[in-house]
Amino acid sequence: MKIVETERTRHRRLRERGSLDRDDLHAVLAAGFVCHLGIVVDGCPMVVPTVYGLSPDREVVYFHGSVASRSLVEAPGATVCLTVTHVDGLVLARSVFEHGVNYRCAMIYGVPRPVTAPEEKLAGLRCLTEHVTPGQWDYARRPSRKELAATALLALSTREASVKIRTGPPDDGDGPDAGLGLWAGVRPLRTVWDALDPDPLLPPGIEPPPHLR
Amino acid sequence: MKIVETERTRHRRLRERGSLDRDDLHAVLAAGFVCHLGIVVDGCPMVVPTVYGLSPDREVVYFHGSVASRSLVEAPGATVCLTVTHVDGLVLARSVFEHGVNYRCAMIYGVPRPVTAPEEKLAGLRCLTEHVTPGQWDYARRPSRKELAATALLALSTREASVKIRTGPPDDGDGPDAGLGLWAGVRPLRTVWDALDPDPLLPPGIEPPPHLR
Repeated sequence: MKIVETERTRHRRLRERGSLDRDDLHAVLAAGFVCHLGIVVDGCPMVVPTVYGLSPDREVVYFHGSVASRSLVEAPGATVCLTVTHVDGLVLARSVFEHGVNYRCAMIYGVPRPVTAPEEKLAGLRCLTEHVTPGQWDYARRPSRKELAATALLALSTREASVKIRTGPPDDGDGPDAGLGLWAGVRPLRTVWDALDPDPLLPPGIEPPPHLR
Repeated sequence: MKIVETERTRHRRLRERGSLDRDDLHAVLAAGFVCHLGIVVDGCPMVVPTVYGLSPDREVVYFHGSVASRSLVEAPGATVCLTVTHVDGLVLARSVFEHGVNYRCAMIYGVPRPVTAPEEKLAGLRCLTEHVTPGQWDYARRPSRKELAATALLALSTREASVKIRTGPPDDGDGPDAGLGLWAGVRPLRTVWDALDPDPLLPPGIEPPPHLR
């Protein structure tokens, strides 16, 4: 399925890196759990990192409203830009000019909808929790009614989106700089999980559940 | 040295995680090379990932103006928000409500200044290149006069900044949920460099320079 372009998602630069494939969009969203949320506060941009979760039908991204409380509470109905980026490596070319980054980036524009119905809020929080740590929703204590009321959850449609992906070696391997005799290639970057670090207050004998091992 | 707070950098939520220490700011900026740049386009936020470099005197962050050409070229003098985030781990608490993320985040606000003087532009590009890959400026072919003219470089003062840091175990280890018998702790996340991936077009016999090994 194709992404429908709008004026603000149309790829104006580096078109070759733009994707209009919704599978690419979903893959980028599925590969991470922290986004950078852009909002406008008093006419100025504000970019805040926050966790997100993709709904199972992939139609919606959920995130906590509190991270952006200054804007989203004061100005409901405002457009946000939610950007998810994975940095996959440095592109080290023969010339400084051709240096770059291998990356996958998704940008979603829209007006987030506050999720207020307790049932949908619970489902959204489950989706967010399971997106970040699959298995954790069934393991941890779920939100009480009071906690649920204290949680601001927002839903953003994934309809208006833009995906950019850059992969592969530098672009100057067949140009005049190839004759310089310089090494060129990619320095790959990867994010890894380290060993679990138990809470020092944990009583002895409590082992991590299987979904975390 | 302390960061001077302004209305938009004042920590309103989670004050305990805010830092006003410029050393913390510089450490967060030094630990990465990709930021998320927030700009306002036609009244809507736009968040774009891009590389940056911190100047040796730490007064300025350099980044390419082209990434934000839609806004920064069309509307010079506009305020941006440049955010750098490192995700250090998942905080897995006993309750879903107390789940969180260990992170280090720096936000810089300001009006970026276009760097146009060739000498300063060259120095800024050097700073950016060396920030991302130390040693690469002296190794790769430097920008020609034509390439330099085709490069848009912006400088953003680090004066108006905000730093937030969250470290350590979950916060519910001494609360009523501690009695639930659930495992809790941190799942640390780390970014690692993988082995260099040479350009397939590289002739045999060209080895990576020492600064990349």
